[in-house]
Amino acid sequence: MAVNLSAPQGADLFPVAGLRIGVTEAGVRKAGRKDLSVLLLDEGASVAGVFTQNRFCAAPVLLCREHLAAGQPVRAMVINTGNANAGTGADGLRRARSTCAALGRLLGVAPQQVLPFSTGVILEPLPHERIEAGLPAAIADARADNWLRAAEAIMTTDTVPKACSRQVRVDGVCVTITGISKGAGMIRPNMATMLGFIATDARIAPAAMAQLARDMADSSFNRITVDGDTSTNDSMMLIATNKADHPLIRSFDGAAGQALKQALMDVARQLAQAIVRDGEGATKFMTIAVEGGASVAECRQVAYAIAHSPLVKTAFFASDPNLGRILAAIGYAGIGDLDVDKIRLYLGDVLVAEKGGRAASYQEQDGQRIMKAPEITVRVQLGRGTAAATVWTCDFSYDYVKINAEYRS
Amino acid sequence: MAVNLSAPQGADLFPVAGLRIGVTEAGVRKAGRKDLSVLLLDEGASVAGVFTQNRFCAAPVLLCREHLAAGQPVRAMVINTGNANAGTGADGLRRARSTCAALGRLLGVAPQQVLPFSTGVILEPLPHERIEAGLPAAIADARADNWLRAAEAIMTTDTVPKACSRQVRVDGVCVTITGISKGAGMIRPNMATMLGFIATDARIAPAAMAQLARDMADSSFNRITVDGDTSTNDSMMLIATNKADHPLIRSFDGAAGQALKQALMDVARQLAQAIVRDGEGATKFMTIAVEGGASVAECRQVAYAIAHSPLVKTAFFASDPNLGRILAAIGYAGIGDLDVDKIRLYLGDVLVAEKGGRAASYQEQDGQRIMKAPEITVRVQLGRGTAAATVWTCDFSYDYVKINAEYRS
Repeated sequence: MAVNLSAPQGADLFPVAGLRIGVTEAGVRKAGRKDLSVLLLDEGASVAGVFTQNRFCAAPVLLCREHLAAGQPVRAMVINTGNANAGTGADGLRRARSTCAALGRLLGVAPQQVLPFSTGVILEPLPHERIEAGLPAAIADARADNWLRAAEAIMTTDTVPKACSRQVRVDGVCVTITGISKGAGMIRPNMATMLGFIATDARIAPAAMAQLARDMADSSFNRITVDGDTSTNDSMMLIATNKADHPLIRSFDGAAGQALKQALMDVARQLAQAIVRDGEGATKFMTIAVEGGASVAECRQVAYAIAHSPLVKTAFFASDPNLGRILAAIGYAGIGDLDVDKIRLYLGDVLVAEKGGRAASYQEQDGQRIMKAPEITVRVQLGRGTAAATVWTCDFSYDYVKINAEYRS
Repeated sequence: MAVNLSAPQGADLFPVAGLRIGVTEAGVRKAGRKDLSVLLLDEGASVAGVFTQNRFCAAPVLLCREHLAAGQPVRAMVINTGNANAGTGADGLRRARSTCAALGRLLGVAPQQVLPFSTGVILEPLPHERIEAGLPAAIADARADNWLRAAEAIMTTDTVPKACSRQVRVDGVCVTITGISKGAGMIRPNMATMLGFIATDARIAPAAMAQLARDMADSSFNRITVDGDTSTNDSMMLIATNKADHPLIRSFDGAAGQALKQALMDVARQLAQAIVRDGEGATKFMTIAVEGGASVAECRQVAYAIAHSPLVKTAFFASDPNLGRILAAIGYAGIGDLDVDKIRLYLGDVLVAEKGGRAASYQEQDGQRIMKAPEITVRVQLGRGTAAATVWTCDFSYDYVKINAEYRS
């Protein structure tokens, strides 16, 4: 049961000129479900990516980095669900290479021009022959208006496909941005989440792409958590097909660049929040806003301590304003010189705690009223400075345990 | 349902000469349950304590530190359940002071010679009048053989009272050690856990007490976690009544000191492990042993990443050897230069992963056999050095969510 998240309509997702998508059933893990997607890029596209910081990063992540570093233009991406090809050592890398080579042969491009992505069970060999056997059907299926089918084909424990589309004027020209993401568990992206793909037909200088992708991830996928478990496969890809007819964007300082960047950030944030709304077993969507910190880093630290606390998350599930649990999490977040007397804690617009204790004005019924809503904001004022950070998370329910206890069965 | 943990028998708990315990019903939160205990120390006892590092530490923790620092001999401890007196600011401190003063008056000692302890709900005012009204009955109840009743009276979400007793020869003299602990949730002690009291009649130099208490906590209460939530009230107290007839122990290097310290550490570890065995909703007891690290700190970091992962904990609940989740946790534990190809992962005695992937010899049925047992050891060899650290934890079940969703109702 996702929180205020419904499936997008295919008609609401604008095609991005210069990019076609094909989907098929390759039987990677189970028969009868779409589990293989290809993204085919016209010549002239630029690509940048951000990837997991997990040291056990998956073979496809290693290969994406290697292929991007080789510097040849990316012409295709291949995505499978059902198997993460992670914790698979040298053999996993060999299998991912084989898939890239197979798709390269079919398209007449070099293997280095293909980027691979996998999601699913860790520590099991990738059935790459089945994936490679499915590639011709995926290519034959390729169309510009296939975004919704791709959003469906990359789902694992997701209950709702995640996609988002915007159009924005850049130097007077209408530019399109469309993106998809997946993920519901093992979500605490350390660079990006498994998986996000955002494409635009805007013309962006290749040299500006990497920083733009990092900025986008940093205000979206790097601000969410479901269970604190950083995945081995997190990847967020930004694709600029450069087909639009506006002057090339070299920096994001000017009006055109700002408009474009803002729209890209909006799409990234919406896709990231969709992952939390569809978090495994989620019944609540929580915004944890920490203000008044000495640094952004310490604000994030406090926000994540709250967002990861199983006691806080179960209290939100129960709609129980057991706010002492939030204070406890702030207290153990690791800020050594924190002065608890300066902290103010708000639930929605209600002041809950100040001066080290419960606010005199606080009434339990006010807390209960806010806790019953499906969307809740927790605001912490640290009283130490001017930095701020926001993190989005969900609650912790019976269904989280059920989903993860039964995941492989 | 605690894992391999049954209630101790009162007859198995040796009295400690120089210490009496009294218990009563003060109606702190609910009527009809023992919720108030006093520990009365004869003259000549030494006391040391270790306390939570949570910055929102509770009023009784602040007061314990203040009273211990004042340097007067401790003559009594007063413990209530039902209310943690945490997140209660200056008013909470005033109420705790009032309770210490009341007990001091009844015993004819200074308020500074009384240490207060509270456990229960956070952010609610301590009903100190009810506690103070109960003190005469608690004092009247005081007996040397009341350990089991005290273990029961300090329980909150615990399902089993936790107590442990040992006798050991020190310089040819029989010395007694008896301790009690409580805790099942909000357990990731950062100095000790809420609450542990360990008493011995051994003669220990007061100057050696503080370090001894730290060493004990460091190999016991500081090595356990249920949910990663460091409590506001964690306190472990070591009491030496100095009544035994052996020469004074000044250091723990000699044979007598070593025997005593070993026995004290055993009791502390057993009490700490009892908390994990009785962890909220626990069905499995897991030992996470990390070896071959460059430092103890990084071994602990990896062990806690595994022990806190909701995905690992739900897989153990399901007896599902979904071992990729353990690899993922090792990978995100924060060791930047970790070489995953050098890591070996064992489940019990079964080699599961090496060289960055699944071990060639690993069979799923071997993993399943070990996962079905109620006690499981996960061993990680990092291949970076000679340091090691062990952490004990439990799994994550439906009942954890249930217990914490319904805690205040």
